[in-house]
Amino acid sequence: MPLGREVPQLLKKRLFYTGRKFNFEVNRLRLPNKAEGEWECIRHPGGALAIPVTPEGKLVLVRQYRFAVSARLLEFPAGTVEVDEKPLETVEREIQEEIGYKAHEWQEIGEFFLAPGYSDEIIYTFLAKGLEKLEEPPVQDADEDIEVVFFTPSELEQAIMDGELVDSKSISSFLLARHLLKC
Amino acid sequence: MPLGREVPQLLKKRLFYTGRKFNFEVNRLRLPNKAEGEWECIRHPGGALAIPVTPEGKLVLVRQYRFAVSARLLEFPAGTVEVDEKPLETVEREIQEEIGYKAHEWQEIGEFFLAPGYSDEIIYTFLAKGLEKLEEPPVQDADEDIEVVFFTPSELEQAIMDGELVDSKSISSFLLARHLLKC
Repeated sequence: MPLGREVPQLLKKRLFYTGRKFNFEVNRLRLPNKAEGEWECIRHPGGALAIPVTPEGKLVLVRQYRFAVSARLLEFPAGTVEVDEKPLETVEREIQEEIGYKAHEWQEIGEFFLAPGYSDEIIYTFLAKGLEKLEEPPVQDADEDIEVVFFTPSELEQAIMDGELVDSKSISSFLLARHLLKC
Repeated sequence: MPLGREVPQLLKKRLFYTGRKFNFEVNRLRLPNKAEGEWECIRHPGGALAIPVTPEGKLVLVRQYRFAVSARLLEFPAGTVEVDEKPLETVEREIQEEIGYKAHEWQEIGEFFLAPGYSDEIIYTFLAKGLEKLEEPPVQDADEDIEVVFFTPSELEQAIMDGELVDSKSISSFLLARHLLKC
């Protein structure tokens, strides 16, 4: 991640909405170039994403309902980092809930900002191998509406190029892991 | 983009913040799987991104200050789609403002959702060729704090792998255009 943080000067906090997963702030700021104004942004604890790979080399994804875009999107399993949780703990939990697998080998792949124009969310990406299917997977959250789907790496690359997978965090994570997968 | 829109039932609009570039809503919804609850999201008009390629095959990027993450990020030039504007008009305008070039050849590359967990923003990606340096580029917005930088495609791929370019829309757009660039 980029070094050299330059924190803007906070002149006035004008609104503060506290949600279940993130907060929304509208602040009057003075930027490093001396520009002053009001800017809105989401304060987010971060998200963690897994690229689960089966022993046969298939990638495990989910097709899940996203109310914000009124559609079912193809994505890698991911979730919001909870309080006192490390990103790796988040994905270990999420893949059990979302795809019903436990992974015995984890590898950090990279991290990036999801929407730095208006959110401080960082996505932490991991490769998950040594998958073991759970006999009794944990119950999904009530609002989760998820189907599990399998792709070879080259099928997934084609799905991205064809506009079937249109989720930025999943596309970015795939590029970061691509050299480790058999495309 | 995925077909088959399934619009959630709006039970109650609880808060509505109107910003300069997007709105923030907190709504009580009934999802297609009958789950009810309150969910927050950003309603965004969309963003348009250009991958500008010089006659020598170099990609033109910007390093710009992002207050939300308190850092200068390496990104492709991009901007918010304004009222009554088409995404292509947005990027034609943005590359003049941000990098001081006009492009004579444009190619649609793809589109994707930036943060579908809490935003409906779509990023529209274009390849921009036939670049002409403007003698008098338009003045930047007061809050823009931008440096122009050049990369070969393989240098840029390395910057992504090294965690120097950590902006999801730029990483995703690079993967979508990669087969058209000389990596």
